[in-house]
Amino acid sequence: MAFTPSDYNPYDFANRRHIGPSPSEMAEMLAVTGAASLDALIEETVPKAIRQKKALSWAPLSEHELLARMHEVAAKNKVMTSLIGQGYYGTVTPPAIQRNIFENPAWYTAYTPYQPEIAQGRLEALLNFQTMVCDLTGLDVANASLLDEATAAAEAMAMAERLAKSKAKAFFVDRFCHPQTIAVIKTRALPLDIEVIEDAAENLDPAQVFGAIFQYPGSYGHVTDFTDQIAALHEAGAIAVVATDLLALCLLKEPGAMGADIAIGSTQRFGVPLGFGGPHAAFMSVKDAHKRQMPGRIVGVSIDAQGGKAYRLSLQTREQHIRREKATSNVCTAQALLAVMASMYAVFHGPKGLRAIAERVHFLTQRLARALKSAGAKVSPKAFFDTITVEVGVGQAGILAAARAEGLNFRKIGNDRIGISLDETTDERVLVKVLRAFGIPGLPPHRAALGFPEEMLRTSDYLTHPVFHMNRAESEMMRYMRRLSDRDLALDRAMIPLGSCTMKLNAAAEMMPITWPEFSTLHPFVPADQAAGYAEAISDLTEKLCEITGYDAFSMQPNSGAQGEYAGLLTILAYHRARGDVDRKICLIPTSAHGTNPASAQMAGMQVVVVKSAPNGDVDLDDFRDKAAAAGDKLAACMITYPSTHGVFEETVSEVCKITHDHGGQVYIDGANMNALVGLVKPGEIGGDVSHLNLHKTFAIPHGGGGPGMGPIGVKAHLAAHLPGHPETGGEEGPVSAAPAGSASILLISWAYCLMMGGAGLTQATRVAILNANYIASRLKGEYPILFMGNKGRVAHECILDTRPFADVGVTVDDIAKRLIDNGFHAPTMSWPVTGTLMVEPTESETKAEIDRFITSLLAIREEIRAVEKGEIAAEESPLRFAPHTVAALVGEWDRKYSREAGCFPPGAFRVDKYWPPVGRVDNVYGDRNLICTCPPIEDYMEAAE
Amino acid sequence: MAFTPSDYNPYDFANRRHIGPSPSEMAEMLAVTGAASLDALIEETVPKAIRQKKALSWAPLSEHELLARMHEVAAKNKVMTSLIGQGYYGTVTPPAIQRNIFENPAWYTAYTPYQPEIAQGRLEALLNFQTMVCDLTGLDVANASLLDEATAAAEAMAMAERLAKSKAKAFFVDRFCHPQTIAVIKTRALPLDIEVIEDAAENLDPAQVFGAIFQYPGSYGHVTDFTDQIAALHEAGAIAVVATDLLALCLLKEPGAMGADIAIGSTQRFGVPLGFGGPHAAFMSVKDAHKRQMPGRIVGVSIDAQGGKAYRLSLQTREQHIRREKATSNVCTAQALLAVMASMYAVFHGPKGLRAIAERVHFLTQRLARALKSAGAKVSPKAFFDTITVEVGVGQAGILAAARAEGLNFRKIGNDRIGISLDETTDERVLVKVLRAFGIPGLPPHRAALGFPEEMLRTSDYLTHPVFHMNRAESEMMRYMRRLSDRDLALDRAMIPLGSCTMKLNAAAEMMPITWPEFSTLHPFVPADQAAGYAEAISDLTEKLCEITGYDAFSMQPNSGAQGEYAGLLTILAYHRARGDVDRKICLIPTSAHGTNPASAQMAGMQVVVVKSAPNGDVDLDDFRDKAAAAGDKLAACMITYPSTHGVFEETVSEVCKITHDHGGQVYIDGANMNALVGLVKPGEIGGDVSHLNLHKTFAIPHGGGGPGMGPIGVKAHLAAHLPGHPETGGEEGPVSAAPAGSASILLISWAYCLMMGGAGLTQATRVAILNANYIASRLKGEYPILFMGNKGRVAHECILDTRPFADVGVTVDDIAKRLIDNGFHAPTMSWPVTGTLMVEPTESETKAEIDRFITSLLAIREEIRAVEKGEIAAEESPLRFAPHTVAALVGEWDRKYSREAGCFPPGAFRVDKYWPPVGRVDNVYGDRNLICTCPPIEDYMEAAE
Repeated sequence: MAFTPSDYNPYDFANRRHIGPSPSEMAEMLAVTGAASLDALIEETVPKAIRQKKALSWAPLSEHELLARMHEVAAKNKVMTSLIGQGYYGTVTPPAIQRNIFENPAWYTAYTPYQPEIAQGRLEALLNFQTMVCDLTGLDVANASLLDEATAAAEAMAMAERLAKSKAKAFFVDRFCHPQTIAVIKTRALPLDIEVIEDAAENLDPAQVFGAIFQYPGSYGHVTDFTDQIAALHEAGAIAVVATDLLALCLLKEPGAMGADIAIGSTQRFGVPLGFGGPHAAFMSVKDAHKRQMPGRIVGVSIDAQGGKAYRLSLQTREQHIRREKATSNVCTAQALLAVMASMYAVFHGPKGLRAIAERVHFLTQRLARALKSAGAKVSPKAFFDTITVEVGVGQAGILAAARAEGLNFRKIGNDRIGISLDETTDERVLVKVLRAFGIPGLPPHRAALGFPEEMLRTSDYLTHPVFHMNRAESEMMRYMRRLSDRDLALDRAMIPLGSCTMKLNAAAEMMPITWPEFSTLHPFVPADQAAGYAEAISDLTEKLCEITGYDAFSMQPNSGAQGEYAGLLTILAYHRARGDVDRKICLIPTSAHGTNPASAQMAGMQVVVVKSAPNGDVDLDDFRDKAAAAGDKLAACMITYPSTHGVFEETVSEVCKITHDHGGQVYIDGANMNALVGLVKPGEIGGDVSHLNLHKTFAIPHGGGGPGMGPIGVKAHLAAHLPGHPETGGEEGPVSAAPAGSASILLISWAYCLMMGGAGLTQATRVAILNANYIASRLKGEYPILFMGNKGRVAHECILDTRPFADVGVTVDDIAKRLIDNGFHAPTMSWPVTGTLMVEPTESETKAEIDRFITSLLAIREEIRAVEKGEIAAEESPLRFAPHTVAALVGEWDRKYSREAGCFPPGAFRVDKYWPPVGRVDNVYGDRNLICTCPPIEDYMEAAE
Repeated sequence: MAFTPSDYNPYDFANRRHIGPSPSEMAEMLAVTGAASLDALIEETVPKAIRQKKALSWAPLSEHELLARMHEVAAKNKVMTSLIGQGYYGTVTPPAIQRNIFENPAWYTAYTPYQPEIAQGRLEALLNFQTMVCDLTGLDVANASLLDEATAAAEAMAMAERLAKSKAKAFFVDRFCHPQTIAVIKTRALPLDIEVIEDAAENLDPAQVFGAIFQYPGSYGHVTDFTDQIAALHEAGAIAVVATDLLALCLLKEPGAMGADIAIGSTQRFGVPLGFGGPHAAFMSVKDAHKRQMPGRIVGVSIDAQGGKAYRLSLQTREQHIRREKATSNVCTAQALLAVMASMYAVFHGPKGLRAIAERVHFLTQRLARALKSAGAKVSPKAFFDTITVEVGVGQAGILAAARAEGLNFRKIGNDRIGISLDETTDERVLVKVLRAFGIPGLPPHRAALGFPEEMLRTSDYLTHPVFHMNRAESEMMRYMRRLSDRDLALDRAMIPLGSCTMKLNAAAEMMPITWPEFSTLHPFVPADQAAGYAEAISDLTEKLCEITGYDAFSMQPNSGAQGEYAGLLTILAYHRARGDVDRKICLIPTSAHGTNPASAQMAGMQVVVVKSAPNGDVDLDDFRDKAAAAGDKLAACMITYPSTHGVFEETVSEVCKITHDHGGQVYIDGANMNALVGLVKPGEIGGDVSHLNLHKTFAIPHGGGGPGMGPIGVKAHLAAHLPGHPETGGEEGPVSAAPAGSASILLISWAYCLMMGGAGLTQATRVAILNANYIASRLKGEYPILFMGNKGRVAHECILDTRPFADVGVTVDDIAKRLIDNGFHAPTMSWPVTGTLMVEPTESETKAEIDRFITSLLAIREEIRAVEKGEIAAEESPLRFAPHTVAALVGEWDRKYSREAGCFPPGAFRVDKYWPPVGRVDNVYGDRNLICTCPPIEDYMEAAE
């Protein structure tokens, strides 16, 4: 017996770990599809003409090589104590929250809670978030997070315009707002023809504006009561927005008490790591009267089919995917995971703890101010919370350098001032260092006194709800987090076959580095030499994304897909403007587009012209040609998705690009379906000028239960100069996000993914994603009509099951979706892009076993439908309609036409490991009619422990 | 309104996070107990005479201060590439396993699976472990882990003595065994009067010995076929033990094929971090005929009440807690968490992956050997797997230094040789460095060939069970781990009120540092300067433990409580011996002692004399006095537990100590109940000479589902010189564990706990532990008789509920324990220390809400018993007997005398968040009669997904 060495590579991440099916399983699956080989399947699916010629180049790393590389890069970042403030503060992430939420796949792999029955846990956590925001800001209704403070401010401006009785076209911006907030407001105001007046609050003329925003406390520290200005604004029919800080509000009079209409801000300092800029959850709260104009997701309380309390997303009809070109906001992704963390921080500390933290920070600041003053420094403002400004004149550079030598970062303000913001991590040792940087020895003893007028003290209670009082001990806190996560179904338990959402594996190795202190504790505005590790990571990721997409430059700033679309369109407009083409405003968008496309175009001040779809789902080329010609030299851009949102590689894509270019327009290719392209087709090679990439889809950033996302944009060289800039890092154009590199820390996930997969692995992933989708289509097509196949009968990386035929017998697409919960699955994407259909995207990460379990489930459901069709059972009496089945239903009386067994254990469901939804089917109408968006009374909680 | 600053400290770990009840809840609870205050309760509970005079001294750290301190200390360790081998190897912990098991409280906070219905997940994982060990070693039955390779070898020696037909009194030890293995064998042999013959395998004379152990591959690399020696041993009626390496067995002929009776070894290199020595899981597998003599826990397959497959611990009757002074092993704690990790590593890689890893390591070693030889080095042995020895003569120091300069650690062998062991983390870059350390430039090209004779190649298959083939993709692997953990009930979901086990909070902050590379990647035998961080941590922990206990010195070596007992008794014997008192062998042990006490004394070669208990559970002082007098100058020691295992602070403890000392004996105080003493009473002050501390009870190391534990011993100054030594670090006495500081990495958990609690916090924890227990006793005493209260009617930190009265109507203690599962609780300790009782220990970490839920549950159970007492329902028809209730029971036909609702949702159970046991009551008898200890056939797995 001659010995033959093994050729098996156990460290091959792409083929061993990331990609689900094994080679032998792939062979079985190919046989089912009828394709001769994987190569042949790809030939039949992806038009040859558009295939890239050169394979992606880089070699893969194993998991342990990746972690070694990450440690190497991490070591190039310098961990300092940043007292820069400006919207970003040191914070202590409670270890229990870090471990049980931030590092727990049950939380981070969940999808947005559109299917409320399988999302009650995170919906409760987000309701806690809303309650926390309402309480602290003193307003009535809050949403479940926005992308960052600066974009929240811009959203507030747009909302103010809609709400204001005043017909003025200007928006006033307090010059004490954070510079990046002002800059993003200006970016957003420009295409909407809103004039931005930036001035001191005392110079506000209410008659001139439809609204105003004040920062409280101000960026340079000022604690000001805006009650009078707000009253004057109201008098003039204008809207008052207050950008604020939740920690300060634990001590200071709340915006609601000043009469504010809208409050916005960041919850970062509630336990969410700085992460060199994000992700963090911003918030918005408003007066009750304004709630239906508020952008973003709102969690509300409704009832389920059995009449029990159930949470859900309220007022979804307001969202961009419904309003399209009439949308007023393109907000899609929120920052759910970070909102959950911030809410848990409040649950963990409770009002007493938060107030104590606020006081501690404040007294330390006051002590510092006194020490500086008594040493002769010029310190402002008179009333402050955690931030002071020191006039240092020509000493600025010297003091900044001295601070750095002490391991501290101060804020550089102009050329003669220095800002210092303290936070909950500050202690006396830090104060001693601060003073030493100013050449002041020692720290004078403590004498507690307020650093602002006593009438600015908050007098109202907050966080009185029991949830903020019952989880102080870690045992209890840990169990609360576990209970909530157990109510939810995430990728750590089952496939989430959501079409267009690309719910692929978020590998543990990819996630680990983001909580290392070298990455997690960096302030976004640290000097560049302290972030050399980040720079290296981002530059290498950029290089790889350029190779993948065929683009020449990338901006990592947009922190969501929709934000990427918006930034991409602004880039196009800036390019036209630079060439004197100021009238190019028309944007052609096919009817099949994602709802965010027209919404983003709308926000960019473009005129949306809708292009028809052909019956097969493709862009109607004739209509496109006509509308492009009609637009003529007003054509700014077209926005297409490739492969199309119908899941097909349209053969006409080159033609569409050509027509657009012929009329002087730019081509925006939406990267939503990039998971069907990587390694096979480069959007920049087939005619695209700009694309955004949903890193949280194709590039393995987890969905976090509804965010974070990242939507960087790639552009061809001619557009590179027009990418978003930032006040801290420069550039011609304005910023679209608060931080220069958006939610920088999660870029590491995508980088890790690219590094471990290697070019060949990424390409193989695309191929297997297409195989998995075609396998499902082949197995189901006899039972469910498959819509929109390519001309060779293939789908791309997803397939659309038509369930409209079943409507005749009363079975709805909802019935099927909810019945899948009984099988332990998240429903596929419902009624998009076509009403009455289910769009299934398995991704490459799912194993054949799991895909087969899903197919078994859908086939069993088809049998249940058939029973209805045959008249054996009425739709309203069938398990389809009663789905999902809860334990409560099982325990009680049973007068159904089918057995408990048939109801709860349909084929495909696990027996021992079954997922049980905590509530029955949720009543959407009830919830919208009876809008309750804060924590329900305690009796509802108690019930749970009866 | 004058402003009053808050005096609330949100960072107070002890009182905010660790201790469950809030101050106001404590007041409520005190009122129930009738104590005027917490001080008063403690006065009534803990005898004044023995109270310590001085409060514990150190100040607490907050969670973030702790992590900062840990980072500081971590930085003092040097992360190098250790090629030392000698039983410890670099390994890659798959990130998915690190995150989802090692860092997941669902796994690490679980208790030992004595209650099989709530432990099916980890029982399955441990069954996988046993299957893996059986397959790889080629033997029939394996246990579910032992403490470390060296103690496993010693256990094998003891087992061989029991099994051998030979009457010889000597045990042969291959001189190529690891030095620490040989040393531990000698330690264990000495008190048992076993002669140890250490020699080359070829010099073995089978007639002289009852057994022999060979290392395969040997410590210096030798790959030898021991078939002939083993046959000769068998001929002589002796037993053959092979210490082996599972990775090598993926390529090499297995011990079973050589005829070995017993195989032992470590599974560390299967993905378990080095951790400066541990914890790691050792294994033992044996021929079927020997299985009933095998020490340690064995997982077996049985059936539940409904006839379904169910796992359980088999053959528990063999355990020390039953055999006591007739015990042949004191093994109690296993290394469950690490065994689970190692088994998951095998599940993750499968046989192909493991074989590829083994080949890769081997070919690199072979390449290195060739490169060294062709440069003229003297390399041995001729046949090797991953380890080679180089003769370097006087060049040794220089080469070791050169290696260190390259970031490498070699093994120093004698004064003229160097050992090099490669592992799966080794790559070509490492080889280049190794060669450079020898002054050899470059690395010759690769030419794969075996470094051992082809007839040594393994020819049999292994890991053929489907579980090792179906979880290759991370999505599937993650879900498998999640499903298993969901089947189990651990501290992350509910209180575990196990008397004597002190299931307290294992805080996230305490757990985090152990997976940092600076702590996790250190080989236990690195030069001292590379482990300065560990030295600092261990020295500070020692100082604090000395202050807590009143002892003068500590040994951190014992890696379980029972190991600590054994080490403590050896220390006492060595002390007597040093004074010429060689005949002092009698050890007085009260009947109420933990079963490990007499077992350990037995192993230490002592003569156990049992002392009666008085009816109130106290030591019978008269009997003690008599037996001490009878022992006279043969009295070596007494072993007592304080407070007693009956949960009472005996007033007589000082008298017991005095009597013992008067007769020249030493007092061993078992630290099992230390959680009632810390900060209040120092065992070293009340007469103790030695104690072990169960760091996994009192000092917050999690139980890991049945290990790791740590049992360091503290001693008074006169005994310090006789503490365990170690071949690597010196000392007069022999070692008891493989590594000098036992399972060093988890010492960090206890250190973190001490640092964050501070002296005052630790003391308060003890007080609240006593309060919680007395609150439970007060609330339940009307319904359940409480056994053994102190003379003021108080219990210590646990209380014993007497359920024997219910036996008259047919309700057993088992019924109550299993019914608690329906409430979502782990049962209290059953029938210990008194048959037919439940011992409840809430610990200080449980909140009043959770304790109340537990009380509600027990009161409801009492009502169900009352219904039986009243004749309303027969015991065998009541929910008590059918408990626990599964979903399967709920879904099927229901012909019970009570409703589904009553069965599944007794008061105290969560409704939405209910824990469902995966199996009904497990049949113990069936399992022992039909012993199956490897994975059952795949059909049983498939069933789960039907």
